Amino acid sequence: MDVHRAGLTMAQWRQLIDEAYRGQVTEPITNIDDSRGSHFDAIFVGGGSAGRFGAAVLRSLGGRALVLERWPFLGGSCPHQACVPHHLFSEAAKELDQAQALAGRLWYGEFDPKAASILELVELFRSQRSGPHAHMNWQSAGQLDIEFVVNAEATVVDASTVHAAGRTFTAGALVLCTGARTAIPPVPGTSLAGVFDYASFIENLNYEPSRIVVIGGSKIAVEYASFYRATGTPTTIVSRGALLSTGGPGRMDDDLRRFVVDGMRLRDVGLLEHSTVTRITGEHRVEAVEVTTLDGPRRIEADFVLLATGEQPNVEPFIDALPVARDADGFVTVDSRMRTSIPHVYAAGDLLGPPLEMFKSRRSGTTAARNIMGTDSEFHYADIPDFLHTTYEVTWAGLSEREARAAFDDVVTIQVPPPELAPGETPLPMAEGSMIYGFTLPERTGFQKCVVDARSRRVVGVHHVGYGAKDAFQYLHYLISRPGGITVDELGDMNELYISPDYFIGYARLRSGQAELTSM
Amino acid sequence: MDVHRAGLTMAQWRQLIDEAYRGQVTEPITNIDDSRGSHFDAIFVGGGSAGRFGAAVLRSLGGRALVLERWPFLGGSCPHQACVPHHLFSEAAKELDQAQALAGRLWYGEFDPKAASILELVELFRSQRSGPHAHMNWQSAGQLDIEFVVNAEATVVDASTVHAAGRTFTAGALVLCTGARTAIPPVPGTSLAGVFDYASFIENLNYEPSRIVVIGGSKIAVEYASFYRATGTPTTIVSRGALLSTGGPGRMDDDLRRFVVDGMRLRDVGLLEHSTVTRITGEHRVEAVEVTTLDGPRRIEADFVLLATGEQPNVEPFIDALPVARDADGFVTVDSRMRTSIPHVYAAGDLLGPPLEMFKSRRSGTTAARNIMGTDSEFHYADIPDFLHTTYEVTWAGLSEREARAAFDDVVTIQVPPPELAPGETPLPMAEGSMIYGFTLPERTGFQKCVVDARSRRVVGVHHVGYGAKDAFQYLHYLISRPGGITVDELGDMNELYISPDYFIGYARLRSGQAELTSM
Repeated sequence: MDVHRAGLTMAQWRQLIDEAYRGQVTEPITNIDDSRGSHFDAIFVGGGSAGRFGAAVLRSLGGRALVLERWPFLGGSCPHQACVPHHLFSEAAKELDQAQALAGRLWYGEFDPKAASILELVELFRSQRSGPHAHMNWQSAGQLDIEFVVNAEATVVDASTVHAAGRTFTAGALVLCTGARTAIPPVPGTSLAGVFDYASFIENLNYEPSRIVVIGGSKIAVEYASFYRATGTPTTIVSRGALLSTGGPGRMDDDLRRFVVDGMRLRDVGLLEHSTVTRITGEHRVEAVEVTTLDGPRRIEADFVLLATGEQPNVEPFIDALPVARDADGFVTVDSRMRTSIPHVYAAGDLLGPPLEMFKSRRSGTTAARNIMGTDSEFHYADIPDFLHTTYEVTWAGLSEREARAAFDDVVTIQVPPPELAPGETPLPMAEGSMIYGFTLPERTGFQKCVVDARSRRVVGVHHVGYGAKDAFQYLHYLISRPGGITVDELGDMNELYISPDYFIGYARLRSGQAELTSM
Repeated sequence: MDVHRAGLTMAQWRQLIDEAYRGQVTEPITNIDDSRGSHFDAIFVGGGSAGRFGAAVLRSLGGRALVLERWPFLGGSCPHQACVPHHLFSEAAKELDQAQALAGRLWYGEFDPKAASILELVELFRSQRSGPHAHMNWQSAGQLDIEFVVNAEATVVDASTVHAAGRTFTAGALVLCTGARTAIPPVPGTSLAGVFDYASFIENLNYEPSRIVVIGGSKIAVEYASFYRATGTPTTIVSRGALLSTGGPGRMDDDLRRFVVDGMRLRDVGLLEHSTVTRITGEHRVEAVEVTTLDGPRRIEADFVLLATGEQPNVEPFIDALPVARDADGFVTVDSRMRTSIPHVYAAGDLLGPPLEMFKSRRSGTTAARNIMGTDSEFHYADIPDFLHTTYEVTWAGLSEREARAAFDDVVTIQVPPPELAPGETPLPMAEGSMIYGFTLPERTGFQKCVVDARSRRVVGVHHVGYGAKDAFQYLHYLISRPGGITVDELGDMNELYISPDYFIGYARLRSGQAELTSM
């Protein structure tokens, strides 16, 4: 089906995507300017965020890009199975957390766990996800003027040739961006009905879970477990180490982590840390999860198990034709220009391994595009801002207090609540999203910390649990990471929008001018 | 009562404030180091945000500050009657908006307007506001080491002398920061029972309003009307001009304003623009508001009227002793160092007139403090970030599109939804706070616009309706206002935390490198 210059509306795109996803449209959907032939500056194999953003920038730079995607839409797993549903569920978790905690108070009625259905939310998402998908196709074909083939498998032939939609396309460079999927752990029982990962949970859930085990200890585990529990469903996390203790970029401040984990305990999320799943049992369907804990073996009944056990790269579409170098976990290795071990072959996105973050996917794609177009461009992601959801939004950037104390002689912190006060002794911090808690359950409002190197007066780390600060942390990360960074005095001279979800500007102002900075 | 070095706990402060506010403690509460005498580098007359922040910075700079406050707590009207309750009500408005719009769907039950009580929320606020008050006193006495007298009227004697708590205090400089209050319009009936302003609404409401008229057309009117309506109470705004059309800094982009006002119409807020109240009628209690509209006279029945009719300064505590120069509206005029027309007398905070924003209050106080301590310091507030609430958070900084087009030859915009799409045709933008709407009522998710001068590639204006972006706009304002500003390419090279409430980084990235920038 040729849609080039057809000017499909959002509604038409949506219908086409829905039909393709239901198998009613099986032919490739092509948006190619055939008058320009079949040769491109670059072919992006995979139309997720890396490929789509890479193609957009290559096009901006005057190049000709082709994006090939097996699904009937561009944008990849994010809007289909990952970040978009995750954000929908996390917003639901936040709302349900309030509905439970405030049941019978204010306008909140009694909390009915039967009314809060995991299945209903998944079905809502499935029924409406072609809306965002349609926007991606509409924008890509129109505003971004990207050529693409969707709803077609691509076969990589060599470093300059790809087959798709019965045609042969050639290019000066290939960008591999076929993404990743859950790495299924070598535990008996993972193929039982009722065992899901984040993708099959979205695609296949057809019953209401009543007892849940989440296997894993990092973001995805914490996020989904918090959502499941917020619906009123008993949920236990089984984590090999301490929850959220993974090293590498994205490590959390100790106090931030403590507030987050304590908050999950307060909400009756079952936490089995330092525990290993030995098997998942059941006849055809999962019935229980057997676990070795520090206190001995445990058997946890469950009719739903989520595997949040890390990822592995989708290398199958290209690895035979292009045996690019990979790391010990199988992820494709690239240099800072996104070049693989094979000349003219680049890789981007989740293929590169953790952290699997949107900005990394997009920026690796655009970095590849710039280098292909002759603009020298590097992308480093050692120092990144990060976030996760529980029933809170949790965001951090820069150094944890512990890291700062290891790096600098004189570290001061600004904390709300301050260390002197017990949880709930003050309703602060409060802002949008935590005001009602501040006036009803003050121990639930949040926590924030600003870490300062007192000698240079530079802010070196910012940490926040609450609501409404995630957007700001993008810019805070930029400000503390730029050459010279930002001092507590410069921060204190900004114009806050009071009550601001992060209190950093106002509190920095209280300390600005102080010759010998002290903690507060 | 001398509390100096008493180390009062949060609970003790809270009890003391509650007792004082109930009239059970009538004596002044003093936190003064008497060993240092009664002379100070500066006395701040008024302990709101201007005085408290000014005193903190003066103390940081090594000076000795005294704060005098008639209420039993520092922090002023914000935590007592203004921004804090406003934020509580605006969060309630957001939650109630969802509860109404999604009634009978997901876990939301039918919406019962009787369950949503304005009175109950005001009572909740009144019963708990001493929590934040206690934090301000605890922090001021402890972490900030500020000397103060609260729960005592101050009498200004001359430019270096103030009486309070039966004592005479002298200082090298005075900082006047006694705040502002509602300017009651010259309309018959404003003294009837049932007619309130934002302060008396908090202090005196003792019944559940059933029909509401809000008089005024700017932020306070819009914010309170949106809250009242969200509780299910019929509410009409009567505005002399078009809603939110006030000039000066803080003017809104046309599209931003349209989305906001349309959103209020969608929620059945009655809007009478270009209309003048001629009288408020009733025997002892308000019964109706008589209005001259463009279509002739109207009578609107009401048992509750909110006057949101602008402010006037509280000059009474000092004006006889210190007849400082004032503007046509009575507000105190200062130079960029916060100096009044009388030597050694400074003014700060709401006394300076609109915009009455927290950052202006705090920064004017700290600017005065710095100059008093001999550090030359200026504060200009011509170009400010701004926000308001409806059931949304509405934030903006820099130029509106119209202003940008007047200033630059080649202006491009990045908009979500783009101008080509009708409301609801796409669920974008979506992020925390708008995800559920995106999947149920997509026309309600929000609107955002980034205005770019294509020639310099600089971002010159940012505009957002939705949730979760307010915090970020503090930093966006800094970035676009700093010398050199920020280009769309620099913005596109930042690391977004996806899904981010503002889409500016991701969309800028899609355009980064484009030689001739185009709108999207």
